[in-house]
Amino acid sequence: MDVLLNEDERLLRDSVRSYLDAKIAPIVTEHERARTFPWHRLVELYEFGYVRGVVPVADGGDGASHMVLALLMQEAGRCWGSLRTTLNVQSMLARVLSTAGTPEQKERFLRPLLAGQRFGWFALTEPDAGSDAGALRTTARRDGDDYVINGRKLYITNALAGDFGVVLARVPDTGEVSAFLVDRTESQYQAYDIPHMPLRATTSCELVFDQTRVPAANLLGELGRGLALAMAGVNLGRLNMAMGAVGLAQACLESCVSFARTREQFGRPIAGFQLVQEMVVQVATLTETARLLGYQAARTLDAGLPGRYECSMAKYYCGEAAGQAATLALQVHGGAGLMEESPVERYFRDAREATIPEGTSQIQILHLGKHLLGVSALR
Amino acid sequence: MDVLLNEDERLLRDSVRSYLDAKIAPIVTEHERARTFPWHRLVELYEFGYVRGVVPVADGGDGASHMVLALLMQEAGRCWGSLRTTLNVQSMLARVLSTAGTPEQKERFLRPLLAGQRFGWFALTEPDAGSDAGALRTTARRDGDDYVINGRKLYITNALAGDFGVVLARVPDTGEVSAFLVDRTESQYQAYDIPHMPLRATTSCELVFDQTRVPAANLLGELGRGLALAMAGVNLGRLNMAMGAVGLAQACLESCVSFARTREQFGRPIAGFQLVQEMVVQVATLTETARLLGYQAARTLDAGLPGRYECSMAKYYCGEAAGQAATLALQVHGGAGLMEESPVERYFRDAREATIPEGTSQIQILHLGKHLLGVSALR
Amino acid sequence: MDVLLNEDERLLRDSVRSYLDAKIAPIVTEHERARTFPWHRLVELYEFGYVRGVVPVADGGDGASHMVLALLMQEAGRCWGSLRTTLNVQSMLARVLSTAGTPEQKERFLRPLLAGQRFGWFALTEPDAGSDAGALRTTARRDGDDYVINGRKLYITNALAGDFGVVLARVPDTGEVSAFLVDRTESQYQAYDIPHMPLRATTSCELVFDQTRVPAANLLGELGRGLALAMAGVNLGRLNMAMGAVGLAQACLESCVSFARTREQFGRPIAGFQLVQEMVVQVATLTETARLLGYQAARTLDAGLPGRYECSMAKYYCGEAAGQAATLALQVHGGAGLMEESPVERYFRDAREATIPEGTSQIQILHLGKHLLGVSALR
Amino acid sequence: MDVLLNEDERLLRDSVRSYLDAKIAPIVTEHERARTFPWHRLVELYEFGYVRGVVPVADGGDGASHMVLALLMQEAGRCWGSLRTTLNVQSMLARVLSTAGTPEQKERFLRPLLAGQRFGWFALTEPDAGSDAGALRTTARRDGDDYVINGRKLYITNALAGDFGVVLARVPDTGEVSAFLVDRTESQYQAYDIPHMPLRATTSCELVFDQTRVPAANLLGELGRGLALAMAGVNLGRLNMAMGAVGLAQACLESCVSFARTREQFGRPIAGFQLVQEMVVQVATLTETARLLGYQAARTLDAGLPGRYECSMAKYYCGEAAGQAATLALQVHGGAGLMEESPVERYFRDAREATIPEGTSQIQILHLGKHLLGVSALR
Repeated sequence: MDVLLNEDERLLRDSVRSYLDAKIAPIVTEHERARTFPWHRLVELYEFGYVRGVVPVADGGDGASHMVLALLMQEAGRCWGSLRTTLNVQSMLARVLSTAGTPEQKERFLRPLLAGQRFGWFALTEPDAGSDAGALRTTARRDGDDYVINGRKLYITNALAGDFGVVLARVPDTGEVSAFLVDRTESQYQAYDIPHMPLRATTSCELVFDQTRVPAANLLGELGRGLALAMAGVNLGRLNMAMGAVGLAQACLESCVSFARTREQFGRPIAGFQLVQEMVVQVATLTETARLLGYQAARTLDAGLPGRYECSMAKYYCGEAAGQAATLALQVHGGAGLMEESPVERYFRDAREATIPEGTSQIQILHLGKHLLGVSALR
Repeated sequence: MDVLLNEDERLLRDSVRSYLDAKIAPIVTEHERARTFPWHRLVELYEFGYVRGVVPVADGGDGASHMVLALLMQEAGRCWGSLRTTLNVQSMLARVLSTAGTPEQKERFLRPLLAGQRFGWFALTEPDAGSDAGALRTTARRDGDDYVINGRKLYITNALAGDFGVVLARVPDTGEVSAFLVDRTESQYQAYDIPHMPLRATTSCELVFDQTRVPAANLLGELGRGLALAMAGVNLGRLNMAMGAVGLAQACLESCVSFARTREQFGRPIAGFQLVQEMVVQVATLTETARLLGYQAARTLDAGLPGRYECSMAKYYCGEAAGQAATLALQVHGGAGLMEESPVERYFRDAREATIPEGTSQIQILHLGKHLLGVSALR
Repeated sequence: MDVLLNEDERLLRDSVRSYLDAKIAPIVTEHERARTFPWHRLVELYEFGYVRGVVPVADGGDGASHMVLALLMQEAGRCWGSLRTTLNVQSMLARVLSTAGTPEQKERFLRPLLAGQRFGWFALTEPDAGSDAGALRTTARRDGDDYVINGRKLYITNALAGDFGVVLARVPDTGEVSAFLVDRTESQYQAYDIPHMPLRATTSCELVFDQTRVPAANLLGELGRGLALAMAGVNLGRLNMAMGAVGLAQACLESCVSFARTREQFGRPIAGFQLVQEMVVQVATLTETARLLGYQAARTLDAGLPGRYECSMAKYYCGEAAGQAATLALQVHGGAGLMEESPVERYFRDAREATIPEGTSQIQILHLGKHLLGVSALR
Repeated sequence: MDVLLNEDERLLRDSVRSYLDAKIAPIVTEHERARTFPWHRLVELYEFGYVRGVVPVADGGDGASHMVLALLMQEAGRCWGSLRTTLNVQSMLARVLSTAGTPEQKERFLRPLLAGQRFGWFALTEPDAGSDAGALRTTARRDGDDYVINGRKLYITNALAGDFGVVLARVPDTGEVSAFLVDRTESQYQAYDIPHMPLRATTSCELVFDQTRVPAANLLGELGRGLALAMAGVNLGRLNMAMGAVGLAQACLESCVSFARTREQFGRPIAGFQLVQEMVVQVATLTETARLLGYQAARTLDAGLPGRYECSMAKYYCGEAAGQAATLALQVHGGAGLMEESPVERYFRDAREATIPEGTSQIQILHLGKHLLGVSALR
């Protein structure tokens, strides 16, 4: 099932999978239950290319292909959604720092990030600016050598634990959105965990900036280019979400195959019932079609093509597929699947997230529709 | 939307709905979060016909029609899944006690049950006997004036809190299954809560019977007629599950209508986007078709017809519809729907249970298929 | 499965079904193959209430309830789509003539229509005015004692065979749409059959009016009230389409049950395979849920309530359900279902029409969405 | 959208597409209407690799890769279903003749087949042996220098027009199935066209063999190895069906994109409505996921791997996807899509065939389920 990968890609995938199965999988349950995250373990994973892969060698990274990044996200998603999303956020930070950071900013933020010494968050979404990123209201007003930030950000992954973050805020005079590095060792802000259903080992936070001062030197990239900076990562963000969802679907498949082979009803393994086979086959087909769309998107980006359409379709379909796969896989398990001790219970909750961030399925449909039909149906 | 109900039914539904909205809805969140249940509040609800409705007046009940029972379950499901399932279990107990109990058993168990003084559980499912109720392994061996029960029961709702319960067990010599009343004030057994995803204010327990002695007088119904006793309630159990699911779908509808009208994106309420309208309309259509199947099943039973087919179809379709409705309703909410502070987060988790107990969707399909085609596809 | 009908309704349904099975079903295949229609047989059916049922007794009709009309359409749809759509068109004509006709118009057009002596068509849709009925371009200019009609109408059922029809046209000075009776014995117009996939015994015509003169006395209803006149029948039209679709789904169910019981593969009837049972059960569930929505819409209208929402939901869901039912029923038949000698081949083609006229599924979604959410998403 | 193809593959696909668009597309409508087929045009297409591609160079073919064969079938399916299925049958014949034919048989049958001078059919299916190929009842009894064939074959494509064919029949003494070449210039048999809904320019025939004598020299392959010979082509047959379905879905996509951009309602192209965009995007996503599964199956076979699973999944998914795509594409067209003058009307009928031959979707599910779960659910 991997004829579209080359030998190196297959080897990488297999070694990452083995590592995660051996070293990370055993600790998932306890962290999910306690809602804690093993931050100190991330650096081990960076050795495989996580986070470092999105950064060029010149900036201390590994400069991996999009296909390698995709496979890494698939494996993270197969093992643990909370891990996958945390790695995704660190990757986003690494990318923007590498792309737009000054030498000083790279030294101060990117280097320790790639070393697994510091961790961060990325704050774009606001209470009234979800799908509509253009509606940001958070402001950053210049005041002497500082910018003074005011506003609220919502659903910010890992903001409670993070050492620093990037905040998108509108600079009043220009009206344009800029990006700022906010370090909790030097700036004051409040972070509140808003408990959520999926990804229990992560936090999804509200951030409140109330006269928060950040040094002007923390402006990341050009003034007024914040949204462009964020949007430059939209393909990678969607590909990451897509392949994480593929990994999750793959985990659902493995889980229901294993369960169906051993669970007996009416005197034989339920694997022998046509209705069970159908559900398992549907999970397999969802997983495989999703995976192929993700592969194609990665290859498209690696070929130097724009890839916007391919990444959007992958995000859309893989997100929906993960939700369907998890729903089916749980059904194969019957009552056992509802118990927190079953991995499929976690898959089901985590999968529900896949159709929402990085553009909901509806937003993707409208992107894809505009591409195909040449007209926007959004406004 | 209620032209199929008569005036009394409409009034009952409205008064129950108002009561639940006013008195119970406000306490749901805290109980769900704390995983506790307000047992002392149940008696208020019995005044509307809950639990008492399944019992004839001669036995101290209200003797309600199936349509009234269906509406009661719809409203419970609309308000709170944990409440709905708890009321369902109490109703099952009330029904079997009324149907098969001796005068002494009715006095000892049914009377306090209907008075809201004692609460119970119903233990049929075992680790290897889920859909296949015939595979029960728990035994009840006669020993003097007692029966000695050995075995394990799984996914038993409220068994941790319950004062007594009914256990289905096989009597060795006969090989047949009988029902026994087990009172925790006189018998020893272990109950373990197995944390589950839906219905957090209930427990789903493993019960372990290890040489558990129950007085022979606690045999409920005729020796060897335990499965028949349980099966006699299968229509009511399915109708209850079905209408609970309808209520849940209704709650999803109300939640996403309300959200879509107020949530703004791209400068206007998302209610004005076609893709949002489509999701809301799908939820409404699922809710309405599900409700009508439930009504039809209730009317069929009230007409004195067998109703097995109608109840099975209602259970199948309503369970699936609730899951789809909740998935869509959450999507309307976007990121907000993933937060535990949103009711739709609870609806989504609770809805996932609807396709499993009282016969999974697959079991219902095979029942319905046998009815339509005259041949079993199960073995 | 008919507990929601009263005894009279059940009897009517059964007698119509028996009649259609005995007298009409045997001639369907030859008429579909030859693309002809047995006009002279319609009068027999009017005895059951078809067409006459929509007209009050005072105007020579039967004045049937909406539930009776719904059952009649269900049975027509179960037997023969071409018959169902032809009866629907005659009913529309009967309704508008009864509602808006002058005594002379009723004598000249309605009386022979109800007697089964003359047949008609109803011309609303135009090449650029399908879902958007407000965009009509056909004009009717007053010229002396005549109106002179110019324009093209499209997809007009039975316009080739019809003796007369109603044309909706815009009167230039007022800009408003009016309705005109066009009799082919007195006016000149061209009708072209545009061969179509479903309903082969009907024609779907283009009508070309090129300086077509109609007497001013043929103005039907008030000047400028043509669209209102057409729209006043929208509920009935949708209910008719919905119940016709239910009948078609019912025919699919009966066809695949019968086939599955007799077709053998792997040494036994395919009825015994779980995947076949599932398809049959899905057809049954689609049929039943669709039927119940149709019943509810009819009861709502009979209760004197507006019913716009209920009829729209019924049209939407029943149309989609018929398409799904036919797709599944054909799959149960395998290769045999693709052959023109199989009734399911006709069902499949006919069902594809159900989601389009009288408002496409998309138009219904937007109607329903506006009702639920209070805002239009159409413009 | 073709980053997974190499340059040669892309060029071939484009040149075939251009040729078919220019030379074949213009004659499709007339042939479909007349139910005739342009046999003499096939040889032009063989120049691109059709039919010849499945045969090694040593036997006079082109020896193309599976990916090339897949692309050829995709393009045929995009242009014309009747052409696609006819080419598929000729390919099956070419393959079995090349694989199992004697030098004399190759000279007599394969050479003219590859030259486009003779055309054939392949007769496996029987009235009671569809999905269950092992249930064949047609017999071939040795009688002197002949075999005498008795039995009926059903749904045999192009058997009316074909010059010769391959018949699978059971040889009484051995009980095993063997393959025989039946040439209508030397053997007597009856062929009846059974009109069918899809693929109108082809015939789907019943063949009746009543004491039909064929020379013993016409035994194709070893005695008793007929089913094995047929089964050796199962992967190719499924891949061909799958990629033909992908081409059909692609045609649906192009058709509805084009229609939506030009069709106006409510004052603007319907392309601008979200619900239309959604349908178009769903067609695009179905097409793309189907295509990728087909590509993967082809690459798997080209890598020398078994590919049974991949071809089965491609056949399953692509067949279902084509049906859904055609249903959606027709809906985008509204009433216009139901007219025979619209290509989407043909796509819709043709697509309905895609889930049936070469193993129905249900048979594929059971193959895939057995592969995934290690147990058969068929018996």
